Amino acid sequence: MTPSNPLIAPVLPRVTERLAVRPLGLADVGLTRGFWADWQRLNRDVTIPHALHWLERDGSVDNLRDVAAGAPSAHRGMWFSDSDVYKMLEGLSWDLGRGPTAQLSDAAAALIDVVRRAQEDDGYVNSFVQAGHGQRWEHMATSHELYCIGHLIQAAVAHHRATGGGDLLAVAQRAADCAVREFGDHRRKDTDGHPIIEMALVELYRETGRRSYLDLAQQFIDVRGYRALDPGGHFDSAYFQDETPVRQQTTVVGHAVRALYLLSGVVDIYLETGEQALLDSAVRQWESMTATKTYLNGAVGSRFDGESFGDEYELPQDLVYGETCATIAAIMLSWRLLLATGQSRFADSIERALFNLFAASTSVERNAFFYNNPAHRRVARPAAPGDGRPQRAEAPGTRPPWFQCACCPPNIVRTIASLGAYLATYAETGVQIHQYAPATISTGAGIGLVMETDYPLDGTVDVRVAQTNGERWTLSLRVPAWCRGATVSVNGTTAPAAADERGYVSVTREWRAGDTVSLVMPMPVRLTLPHPAADAVRGTVAIERGPIVYCLESPDQPDGVDLNRVELLVDEPLVEERRELLGGTVPVVHVEALARDDTAWAGSGWATLGEEPPLVGRRVTLTAIPYHLWANRGPSVMRIFAPARRG
Amino acid sequence: MTPSNPLIAPVLPRVTERLAVRPLGLADVGLTRGFWADWQRLNRDVTIPHALHWLERDGSVDNLRDVAAGAPSAHRGMWFSDSDVYKMLEGLSWDLGRGPTAQLSDAAAALIDVVRRAQEDDGYVNSFVQAGHGQRWEHMATSHELYCIGHLIQAAVAHHRATGGGDLLAVAQRAADCAVREFGDHRRKDTDGHPIIEMALVELYRETGRRSYLDLAQQFIDVRGYRALDPGGHFDSAYFQDETPVRQQTTVVGHAVRALYLLSGVVDIYLETGEQALLDSAVRQWESMTATKTYLNGAVGSRFDGESFGDEYELPQDLVYGETCATIAAIMLSWRLLLATGQSRFADSIERALFNLFAASTSVERNAFFYNNPAHRRVARPAAPGDGRPQRAEAPGTRPPWFQCACCPPNIVRTIASLGAYLATYAETGVQIHQYAPATISTGAGIGLVMETDYPLDGTVDVRVAQTNGERWTLSLRVPAWCRGATVSVNGTTAPAAADERGYVSVTREWRAGDTVSLVMPMPVRLTLPHPAADAVRGTVAIERGPIVYCLESPDQPDGVDLNRVELLVDEPLVEERRELLGGTVPVVHVEALARDDTAWAGSGWATLGEEPPLVGRRVTLTAIPYHLWANRGPSVMRIFAPARRG
Repeated sequence: MTPSNPLIAPVLPRVTERLAVRPLGLADVGLTRGFWADWQRLNRDVTIPHALHWLERDGSVDNLRDVAAGAPSAHRGMWFSDSDVYKMLEGLSWDLGRGPTAQLSDAAAALIDVVRRAQEDDGYVNSFVQAGHGQRWEHMATSHELYCIGHLIQAAVAHHRATGGGDLLAVAQRAADCAVREFGDHRRKDTDGHPIIEMALVELYRETGRRSYLDLAQQFIDVRGYRALDPGGHFDSAYFQDETPVRQQTTVVGHAVRALYLLSGVVDIYLETGEQALLDSAVRQWESMTATKTYLNGAVGSRFDGESFGDEYELPQDLVYGETCATIAAIMLSWRLLLATGQSRFADSIERALFNLFAASTSVERNAFFYNNPAHRRVARPAAPGDGRPQRAEAPGTRPPWFQCACCPPNIVRTIASLGAYLATYAETGVQIHQYAPATISTGAGIGLVMETDYPLDGTVDVRVAQTNGERWTLSLRVPAWCRGATVSVNGTTAPAAADERGYVSVTREWRAGDTVSLVMPMPVRLTLPHPAADAVRGTVAIERGPIVYCLESPDQPDGVDLNRVELLVDEPLVEERRELLGGTVPVVHVEALARDDTAWAGSGWATLGEEPPLVGRRVTLTAIPYHLWANRGPSVMRIFAPARRG
Repeated sequence: MTPSNPLIAPVLPRVTERLAVRPLGLADVGLTRGFWADWQRLNRDVTIPHALHWLERDGSVDNLRDVAAGAPSAHRGMWFSDSDVYKMLEGLSWDLGRGPTAQLSDAAAALIDVVRRAQEDDGYVNSFVQAGHGQRWEHMATSHELYCIGHLIQAAVAHHRATGGGDLLAVAQRAADCAVREFGDHRRKDTDGHPIIEMALVELYRETGRRSYLDLAQQFIDVRGYRALDPGGHFDSAYFQDETPVRQQTTVVGHAVRALYLLSGVVDIYLETGEQALLDSAVRQWESMTATKTYLNGAVGSRFDGESFGDEYELPQDLVYGETCATIAAIMLSWRLLLATGQSRFADSIERALFNLFAASTSVERNAFFYNNPAHRRVARPAAPGDGRPQRAEAPGTRPPWFQCACCPPNIVRTIASLGAYLATYAETGVQIHQYAPATISTGAGIGLVMETDYPLDGTVDVRVAQTNGERWTLSLRVPAWCRGATVSVNGTTAPAAADERGYVSVTREWRAGDTVSLVMPMPVRLTLPHPAADAVRGTVAIERGPIVYCLESPDQPDGVDLNRVELLVDEPLVEERRELLGGTVPVVHVEALARDDTAWAGSGWATLGEEPPLVGRRVTLTAIPYHLWANRGPSVMRIFAPARRG
């Protein structure tokens, strides 16, 4: 079975032999209602205009416009501000792929025109360098020139796939050709300090068939890890993933976004070339990351210093960095590994990331963002200025509308716009559904499905066959790792949902229009324990329900309760209650706790064992809400994990 | 009673009415043998030549020399490298005060000559600005001009006190006069982004009697906290202690060294002016810091980002910054508060800092240093290059010989050289001993004491009256907060050592030469629990013995034990054993533990409560060593706190 439409999606391998499952596109999978569809609507109506406003206000478009006019003045903002414009162009393009509007189309066309005019005759484009800051390709460790071109390529590929228009693709090819001339055939031994060019070039190869792009991507992967880059300043080679060659690397190190963009490119190259060592390395690093360097909310990259991964189980809650872009990059990597393997663990990881850290990154109004995402906020910090753009670090008490380093908001835009592509895949044998949301799914070949669900409010997912081709095929539904006791029914006949070795429950039959498969995933509130080596959360528990990680936030607690001084009574029952909160129906969770009174500790930070003050406090009922909703009601105290007390 | 010699010590208030106890100097208190005397010897023989070598090698002296020669070339190193030269001059001066040598004297004279010649006619001196980088007093938030002058003043005051020589003092006065002309009488509203000028100016006032210096110090305290500084770049006003006026501040915030240098100046001003609000603020902030923002090893400043204090109880072990200079600054603050109040808690804090983080900052050979000090090292990092100087952050597996930002090593030098001044004080009523080490103490007025002890190897301290004046006076000895069951005996007659409200046991009598007071402090190994709000160390214990914090380091453990996977069996006895280690006799501690086998957790970082794998492992005996000795035997894994298991 093959989709009838040209696919509109990121990651479209030219060869399909190494794909366990194959992507569908935005024309094939449409979100119809619910959490993600609502966000897609607000992404178009609120976030995109908001982001375009800020890109203008901060001079990011003007930087290119001035170069285009042949009059580069003082470059404003970060030296890689072009990438934010390109990422928005990519977001606009995917959103056009969901369904064109004149407004989106015009906005994209205007930006494309600026970029086209800013480009030099030989294809080079970088508004910072063109404004007279340094020489081309001079400081590869830090210049972000290929990083910016990588984002340009991704935008162009998205625009071409979504609209068929070739003007931005031509710009991107000229830029890529310029890079090929400079770096290709191992004319240089170095690469960009910030990966993304690798996966971008593979996608450009997919779109154009030009082998030189794939070769250059491969070269950039191959040179890395041999100290190809001069670290120069504050950061070492590990920060740049330049200390160990990728094929030898066993775990994710250094700057988290860079590490995961790089690994996404590594899998992309494997998908085209079949070099098993690349897939093995990516899986090995993903496994290490998932087991030892990922927070419950899907955060990756614990350190502020270098925005980097820490050591194994270095997961402090009160000092986590947890950049939004890093979690988006983890989704990009997991998606590629899902295509390569068809294993549900990669879809599980995407689900955890999407419903928790990713969703928390953005205000419910979808016009304000966290750059880095706290997991435990001890003190309510001042609200973000409503009209300012702070530095990225040290998230304020609420989400700011923009950042001086504005990488995250456009990354959110492009992810939401293309989200439909992550829901389902197909193979010769049938259709696989990875993420649950109300949606229509068409695989071409005469197959159409309608997914209805209130997920994650409720764990029941109905998939109705709206159209089929009379052949026998398999419908596979992911059984999430968090799920116990799932059942599946076909037209009302229920059976336990026994997942196969890939983690999916499958139904194979000659389908008829109207056939309905219902997957029921019981979704009781549960308490989650951390791994015993995760020192920072020893003796604590978190509350989860289905894919949703909960948090305790100060506005929901009884008067006088300090969330830094509570002990959850984990043997008491958890009580779920549906509440209208922040514009939606939300299951909140009531948990019994001891509000600890630490006054007997007086001014001491420690006590000799045997002399410590007894644990005292009063019994209270706390209320937990989904983590992704925190910090939407003003500055607050918040925590995901809280001390657990038995008996 | 008044010392007969001119005092050679930091912090010599002009008025004594607000001093609960009064300082003695390096000519009055001499360390005779043992841990600190050995370090003082190596400080002179090893560290000082080593540091002078690096200051030459890195161009820090040349920066001033070039200006002196009227030919400033490219300034090398940090823009505040002058301060390192001055701090070394201060260290040399205090060491001269302990006992002059021609070599030290010549080294100091040569540096003084360079500085004198580099100074401009109007007193301004800053080799970075004089080399053409920016304008004088232009970027006060970041320029460190007054910071450098502050260090110059401290060096000059030390040199004057130690040698009586006035040449460097004259240079410092000219520089201070230049600052007075620029900033004094509120001609400007701003101050330096990095405090130290405040306490330096107070000391210069003490040394010269010039009121304008005290007034300017007061002005710099008064303007701070009203956003006097333009933060400009990455950091906010709190980083500079410029968000809240000092009299209103309730806790330490922002860059730790800056916060504590500032507070030291605040107490200095209180001591001269008697403004109670300043003392109250300093005590309040010290209390908050000590109870909620200080690590067991005396580290302060948990965050890499901004080298800053975290929120209350934000004490992650695996991500602590713990700058050596911050702990030195905490000692400086505690010492001033001890002089003001006579309370032992400030001496306790100094003891904890000295024997743990401060001692750990330096290799046992005393020629290599940690800038930031880990409390938990999960993975053995590569050794520091023996001949390189890394960036400050991300301490390598062993101590590097120097740093690009070289503030810590000279800070260690000046602290060790002046350490005798922190041992004892006097008052009209008698003598107070705060720190225990073999030493001679002379208070003038005919009183001489000899302290003999193997502290902290052993908890017995003998103080013999070598000389007295026939009058009745009081000998006061600190009873450390960690101590239980101390006894005191006078000439062999023993009684419980009941500490007074200040924390000291006192003996008052008409002393005779030969009288001996023995304080016996039982020093069993003990287990220490963290405060229940210190989330990062919940469920763990640390090992302590007397003032010494222990750590588990990989070289001492049985084969195959991963210190990231141990549970200490805290109901089993701890066994102490004296061992020769790293050139000394060291009580090591054997502790029974479970070496945990986490394989059943497989690739998961969490588990649903009730489904978690059972705790399994094998019984092992671990060995703990004093924390300050860690990382002297090559790269290692290390932790101070480890999970505790009962029953």
